[in-house]
Amino acid sequence: MAEPSYDVAHLGHVELYSDCFEESLDFFTRIYGLTESGREGDSVYLRAFDDYEFHTLKLTRHHTTGVGHVGYRAASPEALARRVEIIEGMGCGIGWVDGDMGHGRAYQFQDPDGHIFELYFDTVDYIAPEKERSALKNIAQRYHGRGVSPRRLDHLNLLAADVGAIRDFMTKALGSRVTEQILLDNGRLGGCWFTVNNKTYDIAYTEDHGGGHARFHHVTYAVDQREDVLRAADIFLENGVHIETGPHKHAVQGTFFLYVWEPAGNRVEVANSGARLILNPDWKPITWTETERKKGQAWGLKTIDTFHTHGTPPIATDH
Amino acid sequence: MAEPSYDVAHLGHVELYSDCFEESLDFFTRIYGLTESGREGDSVYLRAFDDYEFHTLKLTRHHTTGVGHVGYRAASPEALARRVEIIEGMGCGIGWVDGDMGHGRAYQFQDPDGHIFELYFDTVDYIAPEKERSALKNIAQRYHGRGVSPRRLDHLNLLAADVGAIRDFMTKALGSRVTEQILLDNGRLGGCWFTVNNKTYDIAYTEDHGGGHARFHHVTYAVDQREDVLRAADIFLENGVHIETGPHKHAVQGTFFLYVWEPAGNRVEVANSGARLILNPDWKPITWTETERKKGQAWGLKTIDTFHTHGTPPIATDH
Amino acid sequence: MAEPSYDVAHLGHVELYSDCFEESLDFFTRIYGLTESGREGDSVYLRAFDDYEFHTLKLTRHHTTGVGHVGYRAASPEALARRVEIIEGMGCGIGWVDGDMGHGRAYQFQDPDGHIFELYFDTVDYIAPEKERSALKNIAQRYHGRGVSPRRLDHLNLLAADVGAIRDFMTKALGSRVTEQILLDNGRLGGCWFTVNNKTYDIAYTEDHGGGHARFHHVTYAVDQREDVLRAADIFLENGVHIETGPHKHAVQGTFFLYVWEPAGNRVEVANSGARLILNPDWKPITWTETERKKGQAWGLKTIDTFHTHGTPPIATDH
Amino acid sequence: MAEPSYDVAHLGHVELYSDCFEESLDFFTRIYGLTESGREGDSVYLRAFDDYEFHTLKLTRHHTTGVGHVGYRAASPEALARRVEIIEGMGCGIGWVDGDMGHGRAYQFQDPDGHIFELYFDTVDYIAPEKERSALKNIAQRYHGRGVSPRRLDHLNLLAADVGAIRDFMTKALGSRVTEQILLDNGRLGGCWFTVNNKTYDIAYTEDHGGGHARFHHVTYAVDQREDVLRAADIFLENGVHIETGPHKHAVQGTFFLYVWEPAGNRVEVANSGARLILNPDWKPITWTETERKKGQAWGLKTIDTFHTHGTPPIATDH
Repeated sequence: MAEPSYDVAHLGHVELYSDCFEESLDFFTRIYGLTESGREGDSVYLRAFDDYEFHTLKLTRHHTTGVGHVGYRAASPEALARRVEIIEGMGCGIGWVDGDMGHGRAYQFQDPDGHIFELYFDTVDYIAPEKERSALKNIAQRYHGRGVSPRRLDHLNLLAADVGAIRDFMTKALGSRVTEQILLDNGRLGGCWFTVNNKTYDIAYTEDHGGGHARFHHVTYAVDQREDVLRAADIFLENGVHIETGPHKHAVQGTFFLYVWEPAGNRVEVANSGARLILNPDWKPITWTETERKKGQAWGLKTIDTFHTHGTPPIATDH
Repeated sequence: MAEPSYDVAHLGHVELYSDCFEESLDFFTRIYGLTESGREGDSVYLRAFDDYEFHTLKLTRHHTTGVGHVGYRAASPEALARRVEIIEGMGCGIGWVDGDMGHGRAYQFQDPDGHIFELYFDTVDYIAPEKERSALKNIAQRYHGRGVSPRRLDHLNLLAADVGAIRDFMTKALGSRVTEQILLDNGRLGGCWFTVNNKTYDIAYTEDHGGGHARFHHVTYAVDQREDVLRAADIFLENGVHIETGPHKHAVQGTFFLYVWEPAGNRVEVANSGARLILNPDWKPITWTETERKKGQAWGLKTIDTFHTHGTPPIATDH
Repeated sequence: MAEPSYDVAHLGHVELYSDCFEESLDFFTRIYGLTESGREGDSVYLRAFDDYEFHTLKLTRHHTTGVGHVGYRAASPEALARRVEIIEGMGCGIGWVDGDMGHGRAYQFQDPDGHIFELYFDTVDYIAPEKERSALKNIAQRYHGRGVSPRRLDHLNLLAADVGAIRDFMTKALGSRVTEQILLDNGRLGGCWFTVNNKTYDIAYTEDHGGGHARFHHVTYAVDQREDVLRAADIFLENGVHIETGPHKHAVQGTFFLYVWEPAGNRVEVANSGARLILNPDWKPITWTETERKKGQAWGLKTIDTFHTHGTPPIATDH
Repeated sequence: MAEPSYDVAHLGHVELYSDCFEESLDFFTRIYGLTESGREGDSVYLRAFDDYEFHTLKLTRHHTTGVGHVGYRAASPEALARRVEIIEGMGCGIGWVDGDMGHGRAYQFQDPDGHIFELYFDTVDYIAPEKERSALKNIAQRYHGRGVSPRRLDHLNLLAADVGAIRDFMTKALGSRVTEQILLDNGRLGGCWFTVNNKTYDIAYTEDHGGGHARFHHVTYAVDQREDVLRAADIFLENGVHIETGPHKHAVQGTFFLYVWEPAGNRVEVANSGARLILNPDWKPITWTETERKKGQAWGLKTIDTFHTHGTPPIATDH
């Protein structure tokens, strides 16, 4: 058995498209509680208060919704080089880009479903301006308490036609480990959760039943406490945000969750994992059967229909 | 700059000595909420409900209190071999032991202050007996809700005469990274927090002002929510456990904490770190000055005197 | 407008029937976390840790499930006399009984649907035996932390064929105030929430669609924090208790709730109301329309079907 | 024994003086999270989101700090008349005033220490303007989540030279019940907690060691959860507010508390009582001895010195 890889340090950022940009930006800043750290061209760079990098969300004005690209940070320049060699060998590389306001040069590639990824090491640390400086020097930015106010980017969920192909891809390209998965009765993978570090997952893929490609399911920021998720529910309620499902506890990964749709329709989650981490270097993936998943979430909540049908951008079969 | 090391996966277990064994065992099981997974000789093996290994606390009947040894698990057999070579080269190695009920062969060594460590890869996964099996298959053992009922081992705090020497030692021997430290006005390190993974720390050392050696400050298990720490305070109160300080929030590391003394006098903490993790592979250590530390904890609580004087085993200067 | 009445101090206790008594008793003590304070004949007297009276739940072995009787405590002997005179004048009185282990003589009467009530002033204060004495002298019994461990009895929900008739009855007989109600499109009351004090409600009635009489919907104990409700969900999950719905926040009354069925089928709730109280002496009832209620609970959870159909004892139409 | 009185419904509002008005107003609105509902003359009227009346805090520009007056609402016009008759008979009445923006005519009187009280029934209900209307019709105003954002006014603490005299006064004048008290070794009352309803207390008096008169100790608003208190601590920390002590749990009344000083120096508390209520109509006061109080708060925190010395307005002996 090969040694586990630690070449990739963590999920770095997500670029999200919005076709009603101003409303989306208002949602992410005033209601969801992220902070703008810069803007350039059609994009605004956003961050949670304790993200250490310049940004973790790049919100881009676009003619549709969905994900632009996903960035992971490598553990070192050498690790980056090792990964690029592997990815190029897999034949899915795109090439180097200069980076943007948030980080330096990055190597782009795509997954079997067509989602664009990039891997980088050189980054831009967030330097808090005076009024955003925390009273505690070990926090990247002051806790402002505006809106939901999550601490940091947590994970991403993408849709793919063939989750089994994704499992091969992610474990090879990023050296990700599979922590949990859903095995359907037809032998296909219904969902798969991956991690490159001690987080229980930084990306999940679930099967796209709609025939689309390169679609987005949701992005999630982490709050410190489950109470913050409950409080978020009231904030969303009072601001007229569409609450899709939750708060409740996932059976898979045990995360306490709440899903809403931001104004453009992209699904956004607020979550808390408690003290749960994957510390075991030879963790064996947990496999859930279709029967087990039909029991619903941890405390019995049935998974809502739109959770299986709504992705962004929308496709004809959503109607 | 060298690449960060990921040879060591995580803190595995702590052996604690008790000179009033039965009372200590009652504390750890009935009040603190650990579960006994085995006993052999003078030791009982204990675990939190979601520790994946057989045990994380080995409680041993002894003529005094303090720490027996500290175990870390390597990321792979190859990583273990690499580390042993480094440690032997440092001249602090002791040698291989066969392991005990909780894990396989382990390499023992000691830190400059005389604390005994061991590093192992072969371990014993906890297999829950029927009545301890969780309704959720991704949890090691059912959440029994007995006493404080923490989720998993979190970290350890040891005392050392020369914390600066420890910093050199830990970063070389285990490849640990320093996440935070206290730099005293006299130029000495007053405290240093280390991690081998994404946790903000798995071990901390603070200066032993008492002239002792190889002494123990505290061991900590993590609960999922700050509310669990508050609830723990009531459980300790109602069971007559000595609450030393807290609940409050640390300035260093931002952890929400509560310290008590188990019946034999060893300090035990309950803590919650929220969603805070060290994801940055080139994290620069946060350095606190003596002046900053004199401000007290995050919300102003003054550090209690015994926190600086009480360690186990006790020494003459405690009197 | 008449002055508000304060003759009735609070809901005192509920007698619940079980046709699988031992399992129900195990549920209420080991899992739900009540304490047995006495037993006599076919009944066991149970209490939450901070109920000031001897008992708040009388669990009685019976050939079926449902509610035996409901007890309210009057504010004074004079207030009790005033209420009895009014109730006798309403023609629904039954007469005086001697009381049981938990209180002194009581006047019994019935509501229009046939539920038995009793009103009493002389009561038995709970005197904690040594091992149940709290470290805090202002708490009735120590916080034992066993199972859900709620603080006190909160409220009761009964079913009735004609909720409008109940509204007239409760406001006259007990001097209860209506705090919230559901007005159906057909002009009938679908539900009505009553209080005799500053609690937002101590009893609720909802329409029995099944053609039954004197049936029971649920009994609720209050926990201090919403986190206790979430923790209760895990305790129920790990103990195989049927979770019907929740945790979620009610739109009506804003309570954070969780509903389960105890082994005999009686519905039991765990709830937290936060700091919400009815302090206004001339509070105007909040009226919810059928359309408003169809939106589901506060954060959008749809009301589960069994919530409208399952009552105890069961009736033929439940099938 | 006389029947308990329910003539007085609840604590209505507090008038607080500030000698740095703009800073105080900024604190109460932006940081503490109250909402301005009107201003007139030297005063701004403030409210928590679920206070049902127009205001609960009247902040008045003044040459010093401290309390202007305290308002209680009667349960009915008849109850108001009964109380005024009693108070006039006690010889401490001042007379009727027209009321202000927040309520109608009120009867003023003073306690033995010189604090001004008023009793009123006619009030002004808060009518939320469109943008402040909650998504839930049973809440007075939307939960805005700005700053600490407490739910409602909870209680007040005043200083008095002779707490024993206050006990006689409050029980006679308002019909308040004593729920807890501190009996000093010298036979004097060190503190006394009163309630007119089911809350565990709506006013407390503690002994003024400074030789002052009519001084103010603190005002408290209630949040729904203890987590809200912890979150408040971070908000205060990040906004440079002086945190005096807490968060911690009081031994007396068991409330989870946090004390800060607003910019003018008036002490302000954030608190949560959980589900604790005084439902017993013949509750016997809990008496704490000086020895018991020296143990500190519930979990052992020592009472901070300023808690005994700092009141507003300051007096010479504070120096």
